Amino acid sequence: MTNDTPMKLDSLWRGAHIATMKDGLYSVIENAAIGVIGGRIVWIGEVQDLPDYETQSEHDLDGGWITPGLIDCHTHLVFGGNRAGEFEQRLNGVSYQDIAKQGGGIASSVKATRYAREAELIASASRRLQSLMADGVTTVEIKSGYGLSLDSELKMLSVATELGKLFPVTVKRTCLAAHAMPLEFDDKDAYIEYLCNTVLPKVAELGMADAVDAFCEGIAFSTEQVARYFKTAESLGLPVKIHAEQLSSLGGTRMASSFKALSADHIEFIEESDVQAMAVSGTVAVLLPGAFFTLKETQRPPIALLRQYGVPMAIATDANPGTSPALSLRLMMNMACTLFALTPEEALAGATIHAAKALGMADTHGSLEVGKVADFVCWDVESPGELSYWLGGDLVKARVYEGRKYEGHMYKGKK
Amino acid sequence: MTNDTPMKLDSLWRGAHIATMKDGLYSVIENAAIGVIGGRIVWIGEVQDLPDYETQSEHDLDGGWITPGLIDCHTHLVFGGNRAGEFEQRLNGVSYQDIAKQGGGIASSVKATRYAREAELIASASRRLQSLMADGVTTVEIKSGYGLSLDSELKMLSVATELGKLFPVTVKRTCLAAHAMPLEFDDKDAYIEYLCNTVLPKVAELGMADAVDAFCEGIAFSTEQVARYFKTAESLGLPVKIHAEQLSSLGGTRMASSFKALSADHIEFIEESDVQAMAVSGTVAVLLPGAFFTLKETQRPPIALLRQYGVPMAIATDANPGTSPALSLRLMMNMACTLFALTPEEALAGATIHAAKALGMADTHGSLEVGKVADFVCWDVESPGELSYWLGGDLVKARVYEGRKYEGHMYKGKK
Ligand SMILES: [Zn+2]
Ligand SMILES: [Zn+2]
Repeated sequence: MTNDTPMKLDSLWRGAHIATMKDGLYSVIENAAIGVIGGRIVWIGEVQDLPDYETQSEHDLDGGWITPGLIDCHTHLVFGGNRAGEFEQRLNGVSYQDIAKQGGGIASSVKATRYAREAELIASASRRLQSLMADGVTTVEIKSGYGLSLDSELKMLSVATELGKLFPVTVKRTCLAAHAMPLEFDDKDAYIEYLCNTVLPKVAELGMADAVDAFCEGIAFSTEQVARYFKTAESLGLPVKIHAEQLSSLGGTRMASSFKALSADHIEFIEESDVQAMAVSGTVAVLLPGAFFTLKETQRPPIALLRQYGVPMAIATDANPGTSPALSLRLMMNMACTLFALTPEEALAGATIHAAKALGMADTHGSLEVGKVADFVCWDVESPGELSYWLGGDLVKARVYEGRKYEGHMYKGKK
Repeated sequence: MTNDTPMKLDSLWRGAHIATMKDGLYSVIENAAIGVIGGRIVWIGEVQDLPDYETQSEHDLDGGWITPGLIDCHTHLVFGGNRAGEFEQRLNGVSYQDIAKQGGGIASSVKATRYAREAELIASASRRLQSLMADGVTTVEIKSGYGLSLDSELKMLSVATELGKLFPVTVKRTCLAAHAMPLEFDDKDAYIEYLCNTVLPKVAELGMADAVDAFCEGIAFSTEQVARYFKTAESLGLPVKIHAEQLSSLGGTRMASSFKALSADHIEFIEESDVQAMAVSGTVAVLLPGAFFTLKETQRPPIALLRQYGVPMAIATDANPGTSPALSLRLMMNMACTLFALTPEEALAGATIHAAKALGMADTHGSLEVGKVADFVCWDVESPGELSYWLGGDLVKARVYEGRKYEGHMYKGKK
């Protein structure tokens, strides 16, 4: 390389091994280095192969493993109140029915979220977001869905937008207005019409969402209702994803695949024909073991079929106040291994490159390759399998967002 | 109080509610204050009832809930290596038999622990201990049991002792020499004789253990063998505890109760007569949901019977490289609620006052009362039930060890 001018870098990172997660595999580079310019990876390889370079800053990570920053592709991180009181009541023997009668369940989250000021929602969600980030998350998807009216859905999406400005994390916003029925409607079709005629067009016009989501289940919306809503999303140019086949098999996943859904989430009850449809449409299977665990479900998603048809499996926290109060994506990786028998390599792919695909951002995120965004984490571990092995604990050595080291203080002024 | 001279304090803490855990219940004091002298609580009550005082330092906690510092009463925190590789192999389809053939399982931890220098064991255990402490642990029990020879058991107990000097946490050391069979013995009775004649007397003479533990199970030692070993411990003045009835019912818990064991741990397979024996002997039931979860067990400990006979239930991580790589006691509280249907109040008692009882230190630790050690945590929560509700996350606002705030840096020179 003596004839070349030196490579000019903003930052160079060395002193660790890398699981790049290229092609959904560990794709290891030992004794590696990463060169960054403008928040993007411009060089990655073994340190011994580094060409001549000049750099603004050089970081010796002093051991451990680098992985892509974790991507939590399914969260309900913004909500008013919490439901610890209900959790406690249920364990003290109060029935779901009695809790519902006293205004509990999702209705209580909707009430608290509608009532809360934006600043309150930002404050409470910030604490949860910082927990996720402390455990290695660099991109998070945040859904609305506790507003269920134009103003309050926009408020939730605005809070998600603000979180992306307050913290270096990348936020993807999903409009989940078809999450549940608001009290002021008693006809599901009428509510869906309201969403299609009023809510989705305004959300799209204001550019407040990156995708549209719905809860397709007996206790929520039918396959036909969701299809009507997805048609509107499609006409507005918004990609869709779906909560489907969690408690029963309604055909939501197949229907969503016909809309080339980015992902179908939960999917404990999908069958072979659903998996085939996902494979054809390129829809990612998002597994949510925290909800499976919390709800003490027994029907596992059909991992063998998903593997057989090559459907990428992502893993997410489903962070929400009712069925998955989960604040660690790494814990979900452990649960995916322990409860669903994923391998640690599949679990890490599920929290990186396949999660990026579930958010439509696999071209720029989710693996460490030249041209991709320099979001990565250095972990105090001897093998990448340790990320799925430990239950809890603090394994993070360094977090790098768009090529810049983050020390964990509140971060203002980005973007 | 105008006639009295002011109370003179080292520190005063205010601005939070307290779940004192007196009598194993929340025993709440709202808008509370705690006065500390010499690391002990000298005053606790509602802030409005504070008498005149002078204090060296005053701390406004600015909201949240104070609980006793968490007590992890069952860990195997000191070990060489880790078994993430085996975890990964198993999930990739390698059988337990093949892993054992290649020297895996507990034998690999024994080998790595014997081989490791004391400084290496201190370094690796420190990282795990800091994770536990970061999630609110102020007292931790640490077992030996990966040495299985006089020198290497003493090395492990020495590491545990050093950890108690390096960090402000209180460490209780347990000699678990009867954990498994070392390779150099092929007769279990002969190994037990070695422990009774050589290991336990030396451990007692050097004052290296606060209690003695054994693994009573078909794959480990018989009830008779453990009884022989406990008799020696008793004669040396060391209290006992037992790993029993985890995989089958051998009568270990009943036998241990006849030695007035501090605790019987795991106990998935105990029956009513065992519970009665524990109630009579004052033996604590230590529940280990992390191992239950990791091993995918299905037989739950008989919670209803334990409640009926008033046997205190403690909860611990069982932190170990094989069956429970758990580094968060709060996560175990969630699992005790979700998997064993404990109430959040029982879970918190299990990680505080009942855990203190399992370590024979309930007179000084485990609840916040006048005369007890000022080990407490202030949590960023709106109710103490939240400690069991969230899966992961960082809820700690402040940690106080013996009346002094700990900022999380390495701490040297105590004791
Ligand atoms: Zn969800
Ligand atoms: Zn144990």
